[in-house]
Amino acid sequence: MVQLWACIEQLSTPPRVQADPNSHHEPVMNVQIRATGHYLPRRGLTGAEVEAELGLEPGSFADRNGVAHRHRADQSAGETTSQMGTWAAEDALQRANMDASDLDLIVFASAGPEQVVPDTAPFIQQKLGLGNSGITCFSVHSTCLSFLTAIDVVGSLIETGRYRQALIVSSEVSSVAMNPNDPKTYTLFGDGAAAAILTQTPPGESSRILRAHFSTFGEAAGFTQIPGCGTLRHPNIPSTTFADNTFQMDGREVLLYAMRHAPTVLDKIWPGLTQHCDDFEWIVPHQPSLVGMKALTKYFPPEKTIETLSRYGNCVSASLPLSLDHAMRDARVKRGDRCLLFGTGAGLTIAGISLVL
Amino acid sequence: MVQLWACIEQLSTPPRVQADPNSHHEPVMNVQIRATGHYLPRRGLTGAEVEAELGLEPGSFADRNGVAHRHRADQSAGETTSQMGTWAAEDALQRANMDASDLDLIVFASAGPEQVVPDTAPFIQQKLGLGNSGITCFSVHSTCLSFLTAIDVVGSLIETGRYRQALIVSSEVSSVAMNPNDPKTYTLFGDGAAAAILTQTPPGESSRILRAHFSTFGEAAGFTQIPGCGTLRHPNIPSTTFADNTFQMDGREVLLYAMRHAPTVLDKIWPGLTQHCDDFEWIVPHQPSLVGMKALTKYFPPEKTIETLSRYGNCVSASLPLSLDHAMRDARVKRGDRCLLFGTGAGLTIAGISLVL
Repeated sequence: MVQLWACIEQLSTPPRVQADPNSHHEPVMNVQIRATGHYLPRRGLTGAEVEAELGLEPGSFADRNGVAHRHRADQSAGETTSQMGTWAAEDALQRANMDASDLDLIVFASAGPEQVVPDTAPFIQQKLGLGNSGITCFSVHSTCLSFLTAIDVVGSLIETGRYRQALIVSSEVSSVAMNPNDPKTYTLFGDGAAAAILTQTPPGESSRILRAHFSTFGEAAGFTQIPGCGTLRHPNIPSTTFADNTFQMDGREVLLYAMRHAPTVLDKIWPGLTQHCDDFEWIVPHQPSLVGMKALTKYFPPEKTIETLSRYGNCVSASLPLSLDHAMRDARVKRGDRCLLFGTGAGLTIAGISLVL
Repeated sequence: MVQLWACIEQLSTPPRVQADPNSHHEPVMNVQIRATGHYLPRRGLTGAEVEAELGLEPGSFADRNGVAHRHRADQSAGETTSQMGTWAAEDALQRANMDASDLDLIVFASAGPEQVVPDTAPFIQQKLGLGNSGITCFSVHSTCLSFLTAIDVVGSLIETGRYRQALIVSSEVSSVAMNPNDPKTYTLFGDGAAAAILTQTPPGESSRILRAHFSTFGEAAGFTQIPGCGTLRHPNIPSTTFADNTFQMDGREVLLYAMRHAPTVLDKIWPGLTQHCDDFEWIVPHQPSLVGMKALTKYFPPEKTIETLSRYGNCVSASLPLSLDHAMRDARVKRGDRCLLFGTGAGLTIAGISLVL
């Protein structure tokens, strides 16, 4: 770990690039995150409990990966991907003081669907009591950054007038795709769901999406993957293995790759971001791992950065909206605050959306 | 079949609703489908060959389902979801006289991913030689209508200035998810890939997206599904069966449901569409089945409707762009023509996009 960290320090020294304010050419979108919501499975597990499950020495992982606690869904008790997403959506609707029937778009934005066909959004529509409503449903997928992609896509659809009141749901039951023979991932991930309602900004309010940038590097796609559950290693192909259907992550390579590209991408996300983040009150990041969170401190001070890894684990696409929901709920992040939503995800993608909440 | 057809005739008699021209409030998007491309697997199979595979009487299905021929991917020979999609993309780039590096967005728009994490777009980026380019990648999913959803999403992202030159890829290797014990689906589907390049409309050209509408009815989600390959019936859950990982379709229920809702949805897709389709030179539909294609004749005359079911089968999300590519290539559909892209898909979604090509 110490060696890795030294390596990162060396790689990530920001070059003294001059931020070009004219490169901020992207259109501001008059879109507001009206409200957020969440659902966390009833069962919570401490690090010691997960270690005991795997027959590991107490403290062998829990003390090193920063995940003191996470939730785990019980699908047999109804905590499925679509049902957890529905409960998160109902929470967001209540906080927005809206009825489900006020929605005109439902976007599922997660790494793991409930089933491969149809996509998961129609199941959430049905569970919200809207199964005969005709409300548009589809899914977007960019693994851990699916929620960010959805903000960009839905924001554009609202900005062009295609939709008015949209629901985005990120819900993950990644526990089914964990490999007990790989304690690093098994002890890192958690289940959970979060939702957000996006609308046009009401008159007189300052909310807007300032800028969005996504850089994908397909050459690093193999660093984080579940090789199965698709056409290539389909479950009905005899050579497909148990491990193929589980999460595989080379955290070291992900981190080194991301830190090597961070300087270039950060200045595309927000001009001058490699130098300082004074333009933002809050950084709301994806929560990949303890070393990933530590790497963020290179650019973002911890006191500005929302952290939920320690109590929820890495909840894949749900981590970022869960963190936003968490910080809005405890009134740290308030209406009108300038926020940077930021993350790295499998693909490998590095992305950020800057907004006035 | 005769009974079913009588039932449809009765259900689908269009009510004499008055089209409201004022309801056409949606913004026109100055976006052009610059070019399309395709890839079809080298191996083609006739209906008789597929019947022989299943030990069926010659003519037992081939003469009834309208699929005289289809292609089947050989993944071991490199015809994977991402590689077929890449070849289709290269075809489209060549026809657009563009380099891959001119792209700034790659959207994978299919029912079946290559693997569940990461999404398939980064693999296509990598295979296009762009693996270190940073070009944005993500996926959209609305099963058979994923290409239509992508046109709407990418159109909005171009219209708001977020991107300029985008690639959409629909590629399906559905043959891996077929159940030999269900000859109805086994004989219906084919493998294939298609791609489209979307840009802002060049000055002086008339191309634009006129209108887009998607109605989803989650109560009908169970009529067409692959229950597996997701979190609910994950391949590593012991109770998950071979059949769970295969395509299951109640074609009769899909058709009855779609025809019952068609009158309402059609007039949202284009005011007055239940009465006539004189505003369009061409209808480019998804190709669900022979009875599905016949149902289209209720509203769209066959001489205006592009048909590819007979030679490609139902290629899931790739059917619609393959049909568009096919008709542009044989010079029936030309630049400046008014086209309606239309389809029904699992979800259940009924959707249409009207555009000037």
